[in-house]
Amino acid sequence: MGSVVKRLAVLGSTGSIGRQTLEVIDALPSHFSVIGLAGGRNTALLAEQIAKFQPRFVFHQEKTPLPTNAEYEFLSLEDMARHDEIDLVVVATSGKWGLKPTLAAVGAGKQVALSNKEALVMAGSIITTEAKKNGAQILPVDSEHSAIWQCLKGEKNKPTKIILTASGGPFLHYSKEKLAKVTPEQALKHPSWRMGNKVTIDSATLMNKGLEVIEARWLFDMHFDSIKVLIHPQSIVHSMVEFSDGSVKAQLGEPDMRLPIQYALSYPERLANPHLPRLDLEDTKELSFEPPDFDSFPCLRIAIEAGKRGGSYPAALCGADEIAVQQFLAGKIGFSDISRLVEQTLNEHKAIAHPDLEEILAADDWAREKVMQLIGDRA
Amino acid sequence: MGSVVKRLAVLGSTGSIGRQTLEVIDALPSHFSVIGLAGGRNTALLAEQIAKFQPRFVFHQEKTPLPTNAEYEFLSLEDMARHDEIDLVVVATSGKWGLKPTLAAVGAGKQVALSNKEALVMAGSIITTEAKKNGAQILPVDSEHSAIWQCLKGEKNKPTKIILTASGGPFLHYSKEKLAKVTPEQALKHPSWRMGNKVTIDSATLMNKGLEVIEARWLFDMHFDSIKVLIHPQSIVHSMVEFSDGSVKAQLGEPDMRLPIQYALSYPERLANPHLPRLDLEDTKELSFEPPDFDSFPCLRIAIEAGKRGGSYPAALCGADEIAVQQFLAGKIGFSDISRLVEQTLNEHKAIAHPDLEEILAADDWAREKVMQLIGDRA
Repeated sequence: MGSVVKRLAVLGSTGSIGRQTLEVIDALPSHFSVIGLAGGRNTALLAEQIAKFQPRFVFHQEKTPLPTNAEYEFLSLEDMARHDEIDLVVVATSGKWGLKPTLAAVGAGKQVALSNKEALVMAGSIITTEAKKNGAQILPVDSEHSAIWQCLKGEKNKPTKIILTASGGPFLHYSKEKLAKVTPEQALKHPSWRMGNKVTIDSATLMNKGLEVIEARWLFDMHFDSIKVLIHPQSIVHSMVEFSDGSVKAQLGEPDMRLPIQYALSYPERLANPHLPRLDLEDTKELSFEPPDFDSFPCLRIAIEAGKRGGSYPAALCGADEIAVQQFLAGKIGFSDISRLVEQTLNEHKAIAHPDLEEILAADDWAREKVMQLIGDRA
Repeated sequence: MGSVVKRLAVLGSTGSIGRQTLEVIDALPSHFSVIGLAGGRNTALLAEQIAKFQPRFVFHQEKTPLPTNAEYEFLSLEDMARHDEIDLVVVATSGKWGLKPTLAAVGAGKQVALSNKEALVMAGSIITTEAKKNGAQILPVDSEHSAIWQCLKGEKNKPTKIILTASGGPFLHYSKEKLAKVTPEQALKHPSWRMGNKVTIDSATLMNKGLEVIEARWLFDMHFDSIKVLIHPQSIVHSMVEFSDGSVKAQLGEPDMRLPIQYALSYPERLANPHLPRLDLEDTKELSFEPPDFDSFPCLRIAIEAGKRGGSYPAALCGADEIAVQQFLAGKIGFSDISRLVEQTLNEHKAIAHPDLEEILAADDWAREKVMQLIGDRA
């Protein structure tokens, strides 16, 4: 990368991916400069980050002033995402909050390191069309999509198959009966990855893998039938790609989100970073693979079906899942109720075939309310 | 590749790699045309191949005429390798026979699909220097080097580590005592690969992996300390590459030489070929890895040491090993004598630091005679 310093905005800097992004930047100060930071409700942490990185632009959700004396200009997420002085926007916000800034960034032709799954799941058609029109690059941050992207590097031909690996979560091989009794505390203990609460629960239900299938469809312009899911409990092979000649390429590494984050930031180069763990397969010894259990983990099937149906279905899927997970974490519903409520919501959804952004957000809102109503009806 | 047909010469067409090369070409007739064929002593098979592919140029070792009425021009291996009407030369000859044609091909700036290990092991410095000077491309055909090459595709940065996988051969986990009693028949039964006899025995002793380490050093311009060997009995992961950011890429596939052969022929494109097997990891279930046992399989250590010493040592290694394997297959020496004789030969070798081609071939000859003499001394 030579002497060019990439100027970054990190949206969602106080979340799990945002914090790990700043760790990477901190380790490579001669390559990256933080121009913008946008945090959530953790104002104490945001103030610390501002003191450390001294960004020119800041966004914060809370109305009250931040506990810092640093000088900065307040900008909305979208204004920051499209600002002239930003080269690369890290979208590490969660849920639907990523949609508008992502659209603003691709509309301005930026490099967009996208960790916010819902942006592509809900509005994949709009975002990828807009990116193509404006020469923007969407750089995946999810470990699975980063793996696929790394495997496709330099390849001239489209792959014949994408194989997304999944750890299977903490409840791999659980029976339906056992799954019904799972507590939030158990579900929050992911066997291999350090992630936020929402995505950890989505990993336990396999909803996360379903969302990733939809994301892969948009990132790599693949047909749903060419995207497979493979359970791989060790989380070492982060995903694979098959080509027309039968050759398969895989990307491997210790399960550490900082690696795919750094690759998105440094792309197309790779940078040495002594803080990143090295894989030692002599230690790992064994990698195993098995098909997913669609019966015990219906969220995977439900998500892929919503993706295939398209239109506003994936937006309704995201809204319904977000509320269902929230209610599960609050102890209001059981683990198996998540898939039941999401499926029921999708069955009642009056979908729009080619929704615009407002219609996508409305479908998300509708689904959130619908889940609450379904819970209320039962209570 | 569109409508451009690559014009090929296949040197060593009657050997295992040569035959599989012709299988690939036969499956993709609109992409490849066989202009030259060079066979060994199996004149019946060579005649069949000539009848089928109707090459313009032919080389055969035997003085007697071939049993065919087809018209062709007789050319030496070197004249064929450098001929104007050839785009890509497949060097699938064995042992030192590949050296001069490989040099002729790279001297003429050809694409060279190289399966003849000894060429790079014995004369890596000369061949790679000549290739660079003439803009020739050396395309690896070995499954391991093809895997590394595929993983490096599109990468801008040199890897930090190359990890060559090895099946471990039929005698993985054998004790030294048990190894001493191994018969040629047992050694010829390779658990996963379909290969010629010499390379099958070399796989059983791990000499083959040692030669591949030296080959990798030249193909990818790597330091010996950055080339590791990992035992992987399933032969599904064909090799791996580690980058400066800790990311590891691997190439996987069913163990079938036609895949790396085809990739070298079709490079930089990939071609659909229904005859090539598809990998199904749900069937494979488990991939395992362990360090090699340098103590029970001393050939691996001996070969890497010869590579590190450089000069004419690798040529002496190849000559000594070829005769030792021949004598083992003939029932004249035991399995464990192979490494003993090769090591003793290298210890007595008066090496030349920067040998020319003739000095390289002389070192090979000397080592062959030395092994026979050592066997004679004992008898």
